[in-house]
Amino acid sequence: MSAALPVPTPDDRFSFGLWTVGWQGVDVFGGPVRPPMDPVYAVERLAGIGAAALSFHDDDLVPDDSTRQLTLDRFAKAIADTGLVVEMATTNLFGHAVFKDGGFTANDRRVRRLALAKVLRNIDLAAELGARTYVLWGGREGSESGGSKDVQSALARYKEALDLLCAYVRDQGYDLRFALEPKPNEPRGDILLPTIGHALAFISELDEPDRVGLNPEVGHEEMAGLNFAHGIAQALWHGKLFHVDLNGQHGPRFDQDLRFGAGNLRGAFWTVDVLEGGPGGAAYDGYRHFDYKPARTEDDEGVWVTAEACMRNYLMLRERTRAFRADPAVHEALQAARVGDLGVPTLADGETIEELRAERHDVAALAEQGLAFEALDQLAMEHLLGAR
Amino acid sequence: MSAALPVPTPDDRFSFGLWTVGWQGVDVFGGPVRPPMDPVYAVERLAGIGAAALSFHDDDLVPDDSTRQLTLDRFAKAIADTGLVVEMATTNLFGHAVFKDGGFTANDRRVRRLALAKVLRNIDLAAELGARTYVLWGGREGSESGGSKDVQSALARYKEALDLLCAYVRDQGYDLRFALEPKPNEPRGDILLPTIGHALAFISELDEPDRVGLNPEVGHEEMAGLNFAHGIAQALWHGKLFHVDLNGQHGPRFDQDLRFGAGNLRGAFWTVDVLEGGPGGAAYDGYRHFDYKPARTEDDEGVWVTAEACMRNYLMLRERTRAFRADPAVHEALQAARVGDLGVPTLADGETIEELRAERHDVAALAEQGLAFEALDQLAMEHLLGAR
Amino acid sequence: MSAALPVPTPDDRFSFGLWTVGWQGVDVFGGPVRPPMDPVYAVERLAGIGAAALSFHDDDLVPDDSTRQLTLDRFAKAIADTGLVVEMATTNLFGHAVFKDGGFTANDRRVRRLALAKVLRNIDLAAELGARTYVLWGGREGSESGGSKDVQSALARYKEALDLLCAYVRDQGYDLRFALEPKPNEPRGDILLPTIGHALAFISELDEPDRVGLNPEVGHEEMAGLNFAHGIAQALWHGKLFHVDLNGQHGPRFDQDLRFGAGNLRGAFWTVDVLEGGPGGAAYDGYRHFDYKPARTEDDEGVWVTAEACMRNYLMLRERTRAFRADPAVHEALQAARVGDLGVPTLADGETIEELRAERHDVAALAEQGLAFEALDQLAMEHLLGAR
Amino acid sequence: MSAALPVPTPDDRFSFGLWTVGWQGVDVFGGPVRPPMDPVYAVERLAGIGAAALSFHDDDLVPDDSTRQLTLDRFAKAIADTGLVVEMATTNLFGHAVFKDGGFTANDRRVRRLALAKVLRNIDLAAELGARTYVLWGGREGSESGGSKDVQSALARYKEALDLLCAYVRDQGYDLRFALEPKPNEPRGDILLPTIGHALAFISELDEPDRVGLNPEVGHEEMAGLNFAHGIAQALWHGKLFHVDLNGQHGPRFDQDLRFGAGNLRGAFWTVDVLEGGPGGAAYDGYRHFDYKPARTEDDEGVWVTAEACMRNYLMLRERTRAFRADPAVHEALQAARVGDLGVPTLADGETIEELRAERHDVAALAEQGLAFEALDQLAMEHLLGAR
Repeated sequence: MSAALPVPTPDDRFSFGLWTVGWQGVDVFGGPVRPPMDPVYAVERLAGIGAAALSFHDDDLVPDDSTRQLTLDRFAKAIADTGLVVEMATTNLFGHAVFKDGGFTANDRRVRRLALAKVLRNIDLAAELGARTYVLWGGREGSESGGSKDVQSALARYKEALDLLCAYVRDQGYDLRFALEPKPNEPRGDILLPTIGHALAFISELDEPDRVGLNPEVGHEEMAGLNFAHGIAQALWHGKLFHVDLNGQHGPRFDQDLRFGAGNLRGAFWTVDVLEGGPGGAAYDGYRHFDYKPARTEDDEGVWVTAEACMRNYLMLRERTRAFRADPAVHEALQAARVGDLGVPTLADGETIEELRAERHDVAALAEQGLAFEALDQLAMEHLLGAR
Repeated sequence: MSAALPVPTPDDRFSFGLWTVGWQGVDVFGGPVRPPMDPVYAVERLAGIGAAALSFHDDDLVPDDSTRQLTLDRFAKAIADTGLVVEMATTNLFGHAVFKDGGFTANDRRVRRLALAKVLRNIDLAAELGARTYVLWGGREGSESGGSKDVQSALARYKEALDLLCAYVRDQGYDLRFALEPKPNEPRGDILLPTIGHALAFISELDEPDRVGLNPEVGHEEMAGLNFAHGIAQALWHGKLFHVDLNGQHGPRFDQDLRFGAGNLRGAFWTVDVLEGGPGGAAYDGYRHFDYKPARTEDDEGVWVTAEACMRNYLMLRERTRAFRADPAVHEALQAARVGDLGVPTLADGETIEELRAERHDVAALAEQGLAFEALDQLAMEHLLGAR
Repeated sequence: MSAALPVPTPDDRFSFGLWTVGWQGVDVFGGPVRPPMDPVYAVERLAGIGAAALSFHDDDLVPDDSTRQLTLDRFAKAIADTGLVVEMATTNLFGHAVFKDGGFTANDRRVRRLALAKVLRNIDLAAELGARTYVLWGGREGSESGGSKDVQSALARYKEALDLLCAYVRDQGYDLRFALEPKPNEPRGDILLPTIGHALAFISELDEPDRVGLNPEVGHEEMAGLNFAHGIAQALWHGKLFHVDLNGQHGPRFDQDLRFGAGNLRGAFWTVDVLEGGPGGAAYDGYRHFDYKPARTEDDEGVWVTAEACMRNYLMLRERTRAFRADPAVHEALQAARVGDLGVPTLADGETIEELRAERHDVAALAEQGLAFEALDQLAMEHLLGAR
Repeated sequence: MSAALPVPTPDDRFSFGLWTVGWQGVDVFGGPVRPPMDPVYAVERLAGIGAAALSFHDDDLVPDDSTRQLTLDRFAKAIADTGLVVEMATTNLFGHAVFKDGGFTANDRRVRRLALAKVLRNIDLAAELGARTYVLWGGREGSESGGSKDVQSALARYKEALDLLCAYVRDQGYDLRFALEPKPNEPRGDILLPTIGHALAFISELDEPDRVGLNPEVGHEEMAGLNFAHGIAQALWHGKLFHVDLNGQHGPRFDQDLRFGAGNLRGAFWTVDVLEGGPGGAAYDGYRHFDYKPARTEDDEGVWVTAEACMRNYLMLRERTRAFRADPAVHEALQAARVGDLGVPTLADGETIEELRAERHDVAALAEQGLAFEALDQLAMEHLLGAR
C-alpha cells in the first residue's frame, strides 16, 4: 500500500536547517559518527527529496574565513541551480568557547559586543541570500547558579541587543523579521526566555515589537512538559508565530531532536492541525521547518531516510487532520462538545454586568451535564490511526 | 542552639490562605484526615504564631449561603480582635462539578456567565473585607484533549473576562488589583497560561494591563522544570510581581504543595534573595504568602508546626541571603564573575553600530578566561548551610 | 469507514477494574461529578461492550459491612448471568485515613496488623469469587521526608507481609498469585518499590518468589520517564509479568490515568507489540486489564465511550503491530538493522575468551557502518498511521 | 567564620574520576573550553586537595596505544609518589563511533566481541593498578526506537557478558568486583537497566551474583524523578551498594553532573545520612566517589574549586547529619513519629495469622492520630541550615 504514501513537493514549503542533515553526531559522551557534509551536497539532496527551502547558521555555511567567498559562491550556485530558497538564517552564539556564558547576555561586555558584531555580519549575509526570517536561539544565555546571573540586567541587555538589531534592519531596509527561539535548559542549567510565553512577554517590552516574533520548537516546549499545540495557538493569538521548528521529543529529558512525528505523535497531530488552521482563528503561513538531529546510528543514507520521513510524517498528519476536520461525525461531536460556543462572547453585545449578575442558572443541571470530550478525542485518534 | 531560631512578627508580613491550614487532606486516592477547620479558629491561630495577614476563597469562608452573614460577622470580629489583615481574596472556580471544564473559558457559555457572576459577587466581599489583591487561578481552564478546546477562542474569552472585571473594579472604585496564577497542569491535562511567561504575555493584550499582574507559585513553575527565581525576576522586570505563593515541590510530578523550604531548598534561597531585592533591580513589596498543604500525615498540632516552619524557613533563608550579600568575600567573587558588568549597556552612550563592528577582540584570550561562577555559587552554598 | 473498526469480544480477554468506570471524579481540587455506580450495573455494561472480565477492590464492591452479603449475592448473580470472570482482586490500603502512612510499611505496628488482616479477609473473598491474581498497589507505602521512614526496615516489613501472604495462600490451597504494582510517587512524595525494576529486585528476596510477580501500569512507569515496553520486556525476561494495567499518560506529571492509547501513542504501539509477542521471547498470556479514570468532563454515557475506546484502541494497535510484524519490508529492515543477531551468543559455543581476545576487527569500517534503525522505525510509524 | 569549614583528608576516602576534573567541556552544542589535562597533573592536584583515591576509564588514561607504556609508567610513579589509590576502573564503551549502538548489547555481534575484548584488556590493567571495583556504565546500551532493539535478547547478551567477565576475574584470581551503573536515558533515548531497581533485578539472574553490585549515581536516579537516598537504601538492603557516584542534578532534564551538593541539596543531606549509616541497617563502606563535570564556565582554577567543593559539601553534610542523629530533640521526634517501630516485626514471634486476624482495633482513633513527620523533617531542615 506504500504507493499511497504522500510525496513532498516545493508547494508544501518544507525547509531544513543545514546543521540538521549535516550533524556529525558529537554529543556529551561521544565523538562524530559521520564526516562533515558539504553544504552544496546538502542543497542538492534536499532539492532532490522535495524540500522547498533551507536555513543555515553562519558556522554551518562559512566556518572558515579563508574559504568564505569560495564557499558562498559555490553555495549560491547550488541554490540557483536547484531553485531552493534560503528562507531563514541564524547565528551560532553557542558553539565557540568564547560564548560559554552566552552572547547578548554574557557578563563580559566584550563578549556581548563580539556577539552583536557576529550577528550583524551574518544579518548582512542573510539579507544578501534572501532570507526573510532571522532566528535567534539564545542557548547559552542563562546560568547554572543563582548568583552568577542578574536576570533583570540580563533581560535589559537582551532587550538592548534586540532593539539595536531591529534598528539596524530598519536602517538597512532589509526585509527581515526576527524570531526568538525559547528553550528551558540545555546546554545551560536554566536558559533565559525558557518558553513561548516568556519570549512573547519579552517582545512586548521591545522598542519595535512588530519586527520580532517567535520560532518555537516542538521539543523545547515538551522538555518543560508543555503542550506545543497550545503554545503555538497562543503565539498565533498574539500574532507572533513567525516561524516554527518541527521535531520530536519524549517529554522532560535531554533535547532529543528526533525526526518530526517520533516522540509525542498525538501532539504532532494537533500541532499540524493548528499550523494548518484546523481550529480556525489566526493561521500560520510560513515554512514548515525541521530542526532535528538524524540519530547517531545512521550513515549518510540513513540521514536522508530521516529527512524524507520528517516531510512524509507531516504530510500524513496533514491528510489525517484534514479528514478529521471534514468528517461529519466530527462536526457532530464538536457541536456536542460545544467547541464552537467558545467563540461567542460571554457578555452579549450591549448587555450590562448587572444583567448578567441577575441571571439565575440551574447549577445542578449544568453540573450533571456531560461534555462529550472523550468521544471527540477518540474520533481524532481513529483518524490519526487511519481507521476512518 | 534553637534559641537562635528566628521568630516571625507581623512586620515580616507573612500571610496564609485559609484553605492551607484548613486543608482536610482529600486527594485522588483518599478521603479526609482532619475535620473541617473553623475560619475563626484559623484566624486566631495564625495571629498567635506571628502571621500578619490571610487570604481566602469564597468557598473557604462562606461555603453555605444560609449561614453566610453569621459566618462573615464572626470572621470580621476575629479579624478585628487579632489585627490580622485580609490581604488577598480569590474565587473557587474549580471545586464544583459545574466548573469541570473551567469558568471563564468553559465551552458552555452559561458556565462562563455563572463563573463571572460568582467572581463579581466575591470581589464585592473582597473589597468589603479590605483585600487589595484579587487572585485568579484558572486551574480548570484547560483541556485533556486537542479537539475539545479552541485555544485562540479560549484566550479571547479569558481576555473578555479580565477586561470585564477590570472595568467593574474601576467603575466601583475598588482599590484592588488582579493577579493571575499560572500552572502548567493538574487538575486539567494542560492548563491555559501555563507559566509566568504565558500569563505575562496575555496581560499585555488586555484593555487595562496596569490592573493585572501575577501571583506565581513556586511549585507550579517547578512542575515545568523552570527556575522560580528566574521567573519572578522576569515578572519584576515587567513590573508585574503583584503577589507570590510560596511552597515546596520536587520538580515535574504531581502538585506537592510542601511547606516552604521543603523540596528545592537551593531554589528557595535564590527565591528569597530575589524577593528581598538581593541582586538589585525592581523589588517585591507585597506579602509573603504561603500556599501549601500540610501533609496528610499531620493532625491539627502538626498543621501548626508546618505553618510555623514556613515562616521560620523564610526567615532563616532571609538571614542567610542577607549575610551572603553582605559578605566581602562574596563581593569579590561577584566582581571576579563580572556579575555587575551586566548592568552596563553593551553599546556605549552615543556609540554607533559601525564603531562596535570595527572593534577587534582577542577571541582566544576571551575564550580561555575562566568566569569563576562556581566559586561564587559555593559561597552561596556555605551561607545557606550556615557555615559562613 | 467506521464499519472497519474492530469490535471486542470475550476472546480478546479485556478486563476492567470496577473502580475505573465507577470513578466519581474526586480529585485534589474538586468533588464528584458523577453519582456512585452500582457494581451490578457496571458488570452488565462491561459484558455488553465485550469485556471478558473484571477486577475489584474490597472497597469498590463491599464498602459497607452491613450490606456486604446482599451486595455479594447481587454481584455473584450478575457475574453468573453475564458470564464475566472475576480475574483479579486487590485491597484498598490507601483510601482510609488510617492508612495515611501506608499499610504493610506503616510506622505504626497496629496499622500494619490492620492492613494484613484487611488483605487476608479480602483474599478469601477473591478466592471465593475465582480470582487468580491478587494485586498489591502500595500507593501509601512511602514518605514525604527523609527521616520519617527507615527504608531498610520498611523493605523488611514489606517482605514480612508478602512472605506471610504467600504462606497463607499456600496453606489455604488457593490458586492465586500476587502481583506487585510499582509507582514512583503520588499520593506519597516517594513510594517504595517505585519502578518495575525495584519491585523485581524485591521479589528476588522473598521466601516464595515464584508466587509473586508484577502488575506494571503504563502511566506509572511513564511518570518516571521510563519506557513501558522496555519495562514489561524485562519483566517477561524474569518470568514475572503476571498482570498488566493499561492506560495513558503524558510523561512526568500527575497520574493522569487516561484511556489506553491517549498520551504516548507510539509507546502504546510497542507495548501491544511486546504483549502480543511481536519481538519473540517470553510472551504475556494474561488479561488485558485497563486501569484508567474516565475524564471528569464525562457523564455516564461518556464513561462507556472511554471504556469502549480502551478496547478499540488496543485492537487497532494489535492489528497494526501484527501487520508490521508480517510485512516483508519490515523483515528486510529488521535484517538490515541486525535485530535478530542479538539473539546469537557473543561467544560461540566452546569458544574461549582467549580466542575472542585474539580476534582482530576493522574498527574503522565497523564504526562507519550505518545501522538503519530509523528506516525500520519509520516503517513502524507508517503501520501505526494505517498508511501501509 | 570560614576557619570552621571542614578540610578533607585521605581518611575521608574521597575519590574522583580522572575524566571529571579532566573534562574539556565538549557538549552537544559546543566545543572544548579547556585543554586536555595530563593525568599526572590530575593525580598531583587531587592528592594536594586531600583526595584519597581516583578512578579512570581506559581512554582517560591511555587513549593512545603508541604512548601507552610511557603514560602508564608516569602514572604509576605519580600514584606511588602521592600515595593516592586507584580504587576503581571502568571501560569507555560509549565514546567511539563503533559503540554507537552500545557494546555488550550492540546488535552487531562483532561490536559485542570488540567490547568484551576491550573490557578484558582493561580489567587486566585495573587489577595491575590495584583497583578493587570495576564499574560498567552501559550508556549506549539502549535504543531510540521500539523495533531496533529486542530487549529480552539484549538482556540475555548483557547477562552473557557479565557471566563471562565474572568467570574471567575468578579464573585470574583478581580481587575485583563489578558495579553496574544504571541510567534512564542520555545519550540513548532509553537505556537498558535504567534504574537501581532494574540493575538489582538483573543481577539476581547472573551466574555469580555475588561478584556484581551497583554503582548508583545521584543524578541518574534523579533524572527519573526517583529519591536517591531511597534507592541506595534499597541497594544496601540487597547487599549490593558496592560503589557510589556523587554529583548534583535538577530533576528530569539533561544529565547535569553538577558538583555534589548543587541541585537537590536536601536529597544530598539524606544521601549522606544513608551512606554514613544514620538510619541504621546495612551501611556503606566504600569510597565516596565524585562523578561530576566542572561547569564549562570554569578554567583550570575553577575546576579545582569545584573538586574541593564536592568534598567540603560532603563533609559539611556529614557534620550536619551526625548532629541531627545526635540531637535529643531528634530522638524525641523520631519516637513521636514511631520511626523505630518499623524495625519490629508485624507478626510477633510465634504468633499465628489467625491470632492477628482475631485482633480488634479502634480504627477511628488510629486514623485520627497525627504522625508528627513534619516536626521531624523540620528538625532535619534546621540542622541542614546550621541553625541547630
